[in-house]
Amino acid sequence: MPTTLTMQDALIRLTEYWAGQGCAIVQPMNTEVGAGTLNPATALRVLGPEPWRVGYVEPSVRPDDSRYGDNPNRLQTHTQYQVILKPEPGDAQERYLGSLEALGIDLRAHDVRFVEDNWASPALGAWGLGWEVWLDGLEITQFTYFQQSGGIALDPVSVEITYGVERIIMALQGVGHFKDIVYAPGLSYGEAFGQAEYEMSRYYLDDADVEANRALFTAYEAEARRMIDARLPVPAHTYVLKCSHVFNVLDARGAVGTTERASAFARMRILAHDVAELWTQRRAELGHPLGDAVIQAVPERRPEGFPSIGGPEALAFEIGFEELPAAETDRVAGTVRESLTELLDGTRLRHGAVRVMSGPRRVLAIVEDVEPREDDVEQTVRGPRLSAAYDENGAPTRAAQGFARGQGADVADLGKITVNGGEYVGLVRKVTGREAAEVLADVLPGVITGLRADRNMRWNAPGLSYSRPIRWIAALLGPHVVPFTVATLESGRATRVHRTAAEPVIEVADAKEFLGTLREHGIEPDAGVRRQRIASAAAELAASAGGTPDDTVLDEVVNLVEEPVALLGSFEERYLDLPAEVLTTVMRKHQRYFHVSAAGRLLPHFVAVANGACDLGVVRAGNEAVLRARFEDAAFFFHADLRTSPEEMTGGLAALTFEERLGSMADRAGRIRSIAAVLAERADLGDGERETLDRAARLAKFDLASHMVIELSSLAGTMAGEYARRAGEPEPVAEALVEMELPRSAGDALPVSLPGALLAVADRLDLIAGLFGIGAVPTGSSDPYGLRRAALGLTAILRAHHRLAGIPVDEGLRIAAACQPVEVAPEAVREAERFTARRLEQALLESGHPVHVVRAVMPHAATPARAARDAADLEGLLSADGFRRLTAALQRVLRIVPQDAPAVFDPALFEDEAERALAAALAGVAAKTRGGPLPLPEFATTAEALVEPIDAYFDKVLVMAEDPAVRASRLGLLAAIRDLVADVLDWREIA
Amino acid sequence: MPTTLTMQDALIRLTEYWAGQGCAIVQPMNTEVGAGTLNPATALRVLGPEPWRVGYVEPSVRPDDSRYGDNPNRLQTHTQYQVILKPEPGDAQERYLGSLEALGIDLRAHDVRFVEDNWASPALGAWGLGWEVWLDGLEITQFTYFQQSGGIALDPVSVEITYGVERIIMALQGVGHFKDIVYAPGLSYGEAFGQAEYEMSRYYLDDADVEANRALFTAYEAEARRMIDARLPVPAHTYVLKCSHVFNVLDARGAVGTTERASAFARMRILAHDVAELWTQRRAELGHPLGDAVIQAVPERRPEGFPSIGGPEALAFEIGFEELPAAETDRVAGTVRESLTELLDGTRLRHGAVRVMSGPRRVLAIVEDVEPREDDVEQTVRGPRLSAAYDENGAPTRAAQGFARGQGADVADLGKITVNGGEYVGLVRKVTGREAAEVLADVLPGVITGLRADRNMRWNAPGLSYSRPIRWIAALLGPHVVPFTVATLESGRATRVHRTAAEPVIEVADAKEFLGTLREHGIEPDAGVRRQRIASAAAELAASAGGTPDDTVLDEVVNLVEEPVALLGSFEERYLDLPAEVLTTVMRKHQRYFHVSAAGRLLPHFVAVANGACDLGVVRAGNEAVLRARFEDAAFFFHADLRTSPEEMTGGLAALTFEERLGSMADRAGRIRSIAAVLAERADLGDGERETLDRAARLAKFDLASHMVIELSSLAGTMAGEYARRAGEPEPVAEALVEMELPRSAGDALPVSLPGALLAVADRLDLIAGLFGIGAVPTGSSDPYGLRRAALGLTAILRAHHRLAGIPVDEGLRIAAACQPVEVAPEAVREAERFTARRLEQALLESGHPVHVVRAVMPHAATPARAARDAADLEGLLSADGFRRLTAALQRVLRIVPQDAPAVFDPALFEDEAERALAAALAGVAAKTRGGPLPLPEFATTAEALVEPIDAYFDKVLVMAEDPAVRASRLGLLAAIRDLVADVLDWREIA
Repeated sequence: MPTTLTMQDALIRLTEYWAGQGCAIVQPMNTEVGAGTLNPATALRVLGPEPWRVGYVEPSVRPDDSRYGDNPNRLQTHTQYQVILKPEPGDAQERYLGSLEALGIDLRAHDVRFVEDNWASPALGAWGLGWEVWLDGLEITQFTYFQQSGGIALDPVSVEITYGVERIIMALQGVGHFKDIVYAPGLSYGEAFGQAEYEMSRYYLDDADVEANRALFTAYEAEARRMIDARLPVPAHTYVLKCSHVFNVLDARGAVGTTERASAFARMRILAHDVAELWTQRRAELGHPLGDAVIQAVPERRPEGFPSIGGPEALAFEIGFEELPAAETDRVAGTVRESLTELLDGTRLRHGAVRVMSGPRRVLAIVEDVEPREDDVEQTVRGPRLSAAYDENGAPTRAAQGFARGQGADVADLGKITVNGGEYVGLVRKVTGREAAEVLADVLPGVITGLRADRNMRWNAPGLSYSRPIRWIAALLGPHVVPFTVATLESGRATRVHRTAAEPVIEVADAKEFLGTLREHGIEPDAGVRRQRIASAAAELAASAGGTPDDTVLDEVVNLVEEPVALLGSFEERYLDLPAEVLTTVMRKHQRYFHVSAAGRLLPHFVAVANGACDLGVVRAGNEAVLRARFEDAAFFFHADLRTSPEEMTGGLAALTFEERLGSMADRAGRIRSIAAVLAERADLGDGERETLDRAARLAKFDLASHMVIELSSLAGTMAGEYARRAGEPEPVAEALVEMELPRSAGDALPVSLPGALLAVADRLDLIAGLFGIGAVPTGSSDPYGLRRAALGLTAILRAHHRLAGIPVDEGLRIAAACQPVEVAPEAVREAERFTARRLEQALLESGHPVHVVRAVMPHAATPARAARDAADLEGLLSADGFRRLTAALQRVLRIVPQDAPAVFDPALFEDEAERALAAALAGVAAKTRGGPLPLPEFATTAEALVEPIDAYFDKVLVMAEDPAVRASRLGLLAAIRDLVADVLDWREIA
Repeated sequence: MPTTLTMQDALIRLTEYWAGQGCAIVQPMNTEVGAGTLNPATALRVLGPEPWRVGYVEPSVRPDDSRYGDNPNRLQTHTQYQVILKPEPGDAQERYLGSLEALGIDLRAHDVRFVEDNWASPALGAWGLGWEVWLDGLEITQFTYFQQSGGIALDPVSVEITYGVERIIMALQGVGHFKDIVYAPGLSYGEAFGQAEYEMSRYYLDDADVEANRALFTAYEAEARRMIDARLPVPAHTYVLKCSHVFNVLDARGAVGTTERASAFARMRILAHDVAELWTQRRAELGHPLGDAVIQAVPERRPEGFPSIGGPEALAFEIGFEELPAAETDRVAGTVRESLTELLDGTRLRHGAVRVMSGPRRVLAIVEDVEPREDDVEQTVRGPRLSAAYDENGAPTRAAQGFARGQGADVADLGKITVNGGEYVGLVRKVTGREAAEVLADVLPGVITGLRADRNMRWNAPGLSYSRPIRWIAALLGPHVVPFTVATLESGRATRVHRTAAEPVIEVADAKEFLGTLREHGIEPDAGVRRQRIASAAAELAASAGGTPDDTVLDEVVNLVEEPVALLGSFEERYLDLPAEVLTTVMRKHQRYFHVSAAGRLLPHFVAVANGACDLGVVRAGNEAVLRARFEDAAFFFHADLRTSPEEMTGGLAALTFEERLGSMADRAGRIRSIAAVLAERADLGDGERETLDRAARLAKFDLASHMVIELSSLAGTMAGEYARRAGEPEPVAEALVEMELPRSAGDALPVSLPGALLAVADRLDLIAGLFGIGAVPTGSSDPYGLRRAALGLTAILRAHHRLAGIPVDEGLRIAAACQPVEVAPEAVREAERFTARRLEQALLESGHPVHVVRAVMPHAATPARAARDAADLEGLLSADGFRRLTAALQRVLRIVPQDAPAVFDPALFEDEAERALAAALAGVAAKTRGGPLPLPEFATTAEALVEPIDAYFDKVLVMAEDPAVRASRLGLLAAIRDLVADVLDWREIA
């Protein structure tokens, strides 16, 4: 760069650029906001039908990001440049790229990408779908199609573009610390704002008075409510913002428990909603002073005629998107293939193979050999009964004449047809097939309007809703366009290639050239080809550095690019001193890089994949700089953490509120320790194991107080192990600390060691018992504490460790409940137990057991290992003859014997040998099962001895005898059988 | 203008312009502020030695200016553009003018002026001197040399430039309502901000919760204090700003009483001071990261030699300023003449006439016929006594030799000299006069450094302090520069003419051409000439419109321009429906226009005076637009007021807090009514007068609740009369309502009617008694309630109305005290009485009476009319023989008789005829004065009968007789005389 672009120049250039795009330039909000979105120029103006374009700077205050100015990349106040385009203009991405050029960024040299990143503000009832924009791997902008604000759906939809100005400038100026940014000629960012950064950090992290700020929250909330009642949305909104900031201050001070957080969010969300609704009403009352946004709709085009083809031709049908999320890119090919095939099957148009490919910006269907026309067919129309169609003279009646007239046919053309044995007059007509183009013009819009993703958005194309906006449609049948319109779009022969290409939009002459044309311009729509290309390039690059690439993110990366260009980047070896998990987490999760390793050890290299031609040197340098910044962050945290021993770090847990009523994280760690100690009594630990457990329990959760885990919460446990090892703790202790966080998700690894498993179980029991104890039960969509995951993990561990068989869930929960600082009602424990049982049920179902099997083993839900084993056994037994007979016999018993009948019978009252025989068989089986629960197959074999006596009993004996004593005794005998089998299975489920 | 400059473009242009001047561009404060000054980029950065240049937009919130968006010129949030140049660069005015050109303003066409306007923020402990900048009469910018912030003197001094962006844009776009400003292409200001303007007005004026905001103030203050204690000035400052805003909200809600205001201001001032001090300390501790500002000092120049002139030449000595205040422009000519003359008198340089002229940017002294050199003189040095100088042989002694050597002379040169009759040896030496230029180079700097105004400022010229910065010095002796330096300035031959001239700086060849050169370039330094020119142009222009001009502001306007260019402007006739006082107040006070009237009636014209050549059409249109806006404001208020009757308007007084403990303005008006009713008993009102008083008292002060008086407080009373008349109140009632506010200041008209006078007296008694009652006594510099003025007015009215003679001040105060809602201690009443007496004393002194006369009549301070009459009489009597003898005689009596001696004597103890004669004379005088107090001259004549008996008594009688009874009786007789004259005068004062 010839001269430095100062930060203030960058702001001026953005201002001028967006003013030139018709944006009004307004000022930052004059109360503290966390983001430009909160400024009423966005938060309120996106509501309602009025058009609006605006751009402004917004110093955005994030108390939680306070770092005293020490961290090179983190600031309590960073500078956003915010743009709103309402309605979204259809080409906002291109306009945005223009702004980067205005900043002097050469788009042909850099790798600029739109990577899925959705946005939601629970506190505002706002969300949108969109991307983070990457510049050589650096997130520089959030780009969102704003869908809802204040809980109100937005119509029209706005585009929100939010630049992170410091990051952009750091990249452009090539500086590593925000303080070194040249803010203005001769003035660094640190000189301009460094002291404020330090002092406000002090305020937010250390010095803000918690009680004072709590009182402010209450006062602001009350004023907001009063202003809503006074129908004044503008001052009300201001007070909502003040609430939000004070909440953030309290949060940064560590003064917000999870319940308090949920409550504050709910209160703010209600206020934000009421403000939004009120604003919308007020604007309507004012008659929408700025008018109604006009959506440029394509005039509905009824084509005069359709093109004809002389012989079979290929169809090329492309739907063009703004960058789809990787998962949807994967999925869309299948759904388009299905719906296209199905819709074509509904016509009489014959065609060859259907091939569908997809990339982030397109799905392309190629249908081979489409016939010129639909097949012709004969169609028979039934008329009146033959008997009523002709009079005695054989002349057509009025009925026949009327039918013929109605069909536009001559009465002479009517013939005789037979339907279901009845005779009718009828008409056989030849239906001519339509031209292929006409058929396709009918079919293809349905493919488009039928697109649905997991998460859909609206944009300004009425009637369409999908993962991201659809921006173009190409539909070529041979050389012809298949003409149709959908919403604001019109089919054509144009496709789009790289945005930075000399000609970003090109026309294709013929369907059969479509794929080739795209490839000529660098676009590879076939994910398989891309995958292969990336994998081999990554392997080659990694090999050049002496290693092999990780492929965890391969599937995702395949769907992030249309023209994969892999490059090898490096980082300084010194970062290898950091724990490998930290490095790989950063590379994988944040950057989608393939890390490179050799012989199980990381190498200081990575493979990144850019999209399309670019200046590899520039892009490599950019990606390396981003990674360096991220590693620098991590190193900063790591070294800060190493200055504190695990033992000391546990002290920090007291400052982390877990839940208001359940105390701090230190309290929770203490409970885990207690619960684990009690459970250990039942687990028969060896000496070494006991010591390991004690020590690990002493340190439980300590890493939650580490900087690293506060930053990268997915490293909880991992860092505990790392730090414990470095602090000289025995390896088993470190291992147990890692394991106690397992499994992190369904399918994750489980603890191997007994101490680890015990701690993991205690952790989850505490969580579940505590939160059920205070009534914080998960609802349909909300499970903020991850109780479902915890219960699932708990059962998984108990299934995996037979040495934990002595710990049933119900007892575990009662032990944990007794440790809580609040009284946990027995009913709450039972509810928690049922909740956990349902998770087990779900896990068993998901592992493939039929529902009746799973239900049948649920009596053992408290011992998941047994339930799981029984389910497996049961599934096998169900097809065995003996077992089926046993089941049938038991059903007879269970059907007749009341639940409350006592299992008491008097052999003296026996009247029939069958009674005696059954009692004897029962005694025999009972004797064999007395030693404890038999495995299900053994039990079944044993209990088969009952089958014949039961059947004989029912054949010979009238259970419901008239003599009450006899009747009671006979039922008592059956009740004894009932009780014998009751604990084994829920037999009724397998009736 | 070819295309409209939108408001956002204007902001961008200012941003770019000031960035180009080396300013860092920062963002508005993210908490509500009343002005850009409060942003830490100003408030904190102006402190300490570090250089700083910054520019930013600041949406400035003034809750008090809320008008629901109805008023075309008043907004609760207006947009400031704020610039700080630290240190002041010496040419800030020129840079500022450059910014106007950047906005597309043609400085040659418009009349741009710097009109004195100083700035102070008591709440911030901040002040500065400077100007409001006028563009064709419109105030568009505040331009200040910042002197103090947070109570800390600023070194170096910063220049603060604050643009009122809406006003500038309204003028440039030619729109009459802020809502009509084109804010951005296709978007009006009203569309962008109108709803917020309305709603925030609602909040500030009607809906803000007073108790909630009071609580916020307390909370913010506490956080500010805590942050100061934590040594964090940045968050502390933020909380001070929050205090300030909340205070403004409370104020706009009418919830702040005067005492509460004073207390809040004091609290904020202390916080602001502590923040400023802390910031200064912290920056010092950080080692002043931005370095120390460098003041460009002129290297001290010791000239090699001085130019010589061959014969008498003129001296032209010009000191160039940035625009002086009008009063100082007037004053500086005299002070320079005095100091120059005096300093020249201290040399031996002969010269001719000294003529000094002044204009706003210069003072020019022309000294005729300066001689080429100082006169030579002989100087005699006294040596030892002659007798000790020569020995008996006539040879010089060692003493003589030593003396000669010490003087560097030969012993032979010694002569004989006589001093006070003693004979000495001595030496006569010739002292050669210096060159004129050398003398002047010595003298002239003293004139400059000696300049002092009433209010002085510092700028970045160490050692200088004056009303406004001195920017150049021209000093020519004939054709030569008189070379010297003062602070950063160096004398030369350059002078400056109009800033918009083709050559704004010109060189003058010779002193004798100085005045002519200035005049050739349009500068008239002679105020008399300017006055004459303006007066005749105004008369001519007014005559052309059929009227004559008012000349109230003539003296001021003479000192606002260097080249007066008068123009006749007009306004729409419909504004003449407004009360004339409103129109003239606006034209005089705000605009410095000469209003035009004929036969006592206003005409719809005015004369404005521009400075220098400009496009008269443009300037006229601009001034007319300004006046239209101001009249529109006034009409808005007037018509709003007319919708409410005076009776109804009194209802509004309850909402105006007068003083927390003394209640609302309604309470005060009620007290005035009561007090006036009691006083009326003593004033012998006629029937009509009584009715007038009752009605006027009923309406007392009602206009304080009118919009007009809230806006233009100087119209209180005037508007009451106006509104009362229009509401059909009888003329005497209207008149009394006007008169009750008189006199407004010393020398103002007094009430004429008795009802008016009674109400005026009651008003002032209530004010004084109430505030002394609560201890709110004026201090040296602080008299927020104007008690001095009230007391002065009270005595002036009582002096003027003999029918109020029956109302002594002390009784009036006691009556008023009894009406207060708080208990007023007797001592407080006495203090109030003494306070009022001192004001009377001051008034009598100022009217020219000698101090002993005034003191002598002070026993009658409670009846100011009598005191005044006595003072006049006494001054006449003092030169009369008879009175002098009377005085002398009475002094003899008063000297001997103790204060506490009872006035009892026993004629039986008389021993001498003189005693009997004196007793008889006493009885005679007493008989003549028994009917009541005689006017002083009559009393004097009557009492002269005592003179001879007193003298005889002292000659003949030994008062201090040995017999105690005789002594007591003799003293008793004298005590009786003492008592007889005691009430008349304080005789000792005229001893």
